[in-house]
Amino acid sequence: MEQQYVLGIDVGGTSVKQAVFTVDGNMLKKWSISTDKADNGTNILKDISASVNKALSSLKLDKKQFIGAGVGVPGFIDMESGMVDFAVNIGWKKYPIVRILSDYLNIPVAVDNDANLAAAGEYWRGAGDGADDMILFTIGTGVGGGIIVKGDIVHGVGGMGGEIGHVTVIPEGGAPCNCGKAGCLETVSSATGIIRLAKEEAEKNKNSSLYKLWQEKNELSTKDIFELSAAGDQTANVVIEKAMHYLGLAAANIANVLNPQKIVIGGGVSAAGEQLLIPLRSHYEEYALERVKADSDFALAELGNDAGVTGAAWMAKTYLNEEK
Amino acid sequence: MEQQYVLGIDVGGTSVKQAVFTVDGNMLKKWSISTDKADNGTNILKDISASVNKALSSLKLDKKQFIGAGVGVPGFIDMESGMVDFAVNIGWKKYPIVRILSDYLNIPVAVDNDANLAAAGEYWRGAGDGADDMILFTIGTGVGGGIIVKGDIVHGVGGMGGEIGHVTVIPEGGAPCNCGKAGCLETVSSATGIIRLAKEEAEKNKNSSLYKLWQEKNELSTKDIFELSAAGDQTANVVIEKAMHYLGLAAANIANVLNPQKIVIGGGVSAAGEQLLIPLRSHYEEYALERVKADSDFALAELGNDAGVTGAAWMAKTYLNEEK
Repeated sequence: MEQQYVLGIDVGGTSVKQAVFTVDGNMLKKWSISTDKADNGTNILKDISASVNKALSSLKLDKKQFIGAGVGVPGFIDMESGMVDFAVNIGWKKYPIVRILSDYLNIPVAVDNDANLAAAGEYWRGAGDGADDMILFTIGTGVGGGIIVKGDIVHGVGGMGGEIGHVTVIPEGGAPCNCGKAGCLETVSSATGIIRLAKEEAEKNKNSSLYKLWQEKNELSTKDIFELSAAGDQTANVVIEKAMHYLGLAAANIANVLNPQKIVIGGGVSAAGEQLLIPLRSHYEEYALERVKADSDFALAELGNDAGVTGAAWMAKTYLNEEK
Repeated sequence: MEQQYVLGIDVGGTSVKQAVFTVDGNMLKKWSISTDKADNGTNILKDISASVNKALSSLKLDKKQFIGAGVGVPGFIDMESGMVDFAVNIGWKKYPIVRILSDYLNIPVAVDNDANLAAAGEYWRGAGDGADDMILFTIGTGVGGGIIVKGDIVHGVGGMGGEIGHVTVIPEGGAPCNCGKAGCLETVSSATGIIRLAKEEAEKNKNSSLYKLWQEKNELSTKDIFELSAAGDQTANVVIEKAMHYLGLAAANIANVLNPQKIVIGGGVSAAGEQLLIPLRSHYEEYALERVKADSDFALAELGNDAGVTGAAWMAKTYLNEEK
């Protein structure tokens, strides 16, 4: 029987997203189950297996028609041994996910971290649009991302490839980062970082709409900041300028090294769209080499929450297809 | 007849280095001819062909035993079309090097820029020691380099991959760079950059041995600066500290993205050895993620002037071997 389907699985702290794809990337069905974190996540893979069986029977598909399953996990992965080294939000530690899940599913399994697979998803079926050299920045609570070089994910020797949130953009006097360093891109261009910058700037400009809104709401969101900037608040403008200056610097420095065709911006903050891309492009152009600039386009991520399952399916088709 | 040899050719502004290798990387013979830059370098490939024929006959080898030839050129390459876009020191412009050289040699030819091939050479037979994820910094008059990911050269979409000398390390107020930007790594960590920093620091410290030597010689070399630093001159120390601070920052930022196993330092300035590596490692460790740090080692380049021909031979064996 010709193997023509792949399974994409995206394990998150709240839910496990799953989807069935054809090998050429059409999503036939997607569903999700909640993540059972009891007993250090020991039931998750069994739950996945049961829900996969249900989905396949509703699609009238047989396991024999599957090349395999890709699974994304938020954590450190040892790809060679198929182990999750450490996934703090799930509870897995030195967890042999490939062995256990392939036993349950009875098809080959490959694992990678969720950020890399989101990049692969956008590369395969999203904003990457098949660009074989691509960078994804995921701007959410933190800054994550993934790197595609020559149509493959960059893993590095220990699976740490693509840690673009921890590029240092403020070498001296930067704010402390969760990673233990200081001045990382994540400290200034993530949602958390932008809000921190906003409070700093608002303190300096107590007549600003930004300061007033902060005092009223007792909190600020990136949506507030982008809205105030659109409405003409100068202090909000300065905040966005700063955050995009650092993101543009980091993007240009990575691009000077990798010469990508596409730089894709995803994550919650990317909802700001052109309001984010316009200053980002302008700062990128300050720091990128002429030829690197000419070769690269920015794009907003297109797959949203489906990026992870899509990239996981891409991995299954790419890494598990022995015919390929 | 089994194809078991490859030819490596490294075209430079003064000489063309050439060597014959076995496919497993043993160099059987190397030689060089001078670069005839007359008439925009139109005779160079013919000269190469004649010298190859002579070398092969002295080795009693037949062209049929060759997988092909790799050739490195200092300039912008369009790998897809096999063209040299622009090689200012040679005189080639939109020059179809692959077509012409393969006609002369009567074996397949592949072309890349010399910096990428130096990285491939160190990867294959030098300090890279087979580390499939490796960065080479070549610290000479400028800062060049090349990137190896998963055992292959990173080219990027337009062949600009590996332009690590133009990572911006001083985003504001940096010195102008030959590339048209300012604050590039090359402006502070190349030989030229180090000497510029030395003069700046010496001006500020006219009692320093550095200042005195500069006045005596009316010029400074990086060798002078490293020697004075070894002899205890504080001003020379400050210069080396600064240059290695920026190099460490750039190396860590690239490593946070690519998670390499080896970071190799070559080029003339690398003759300073541990005097360079000690401050470099220390600044790298400030800016690299814990896991990235743990995965990576610094090493000095081992192949010297042979890196280019070795990488060119690697390219021939890797890109032209159809059995592979």
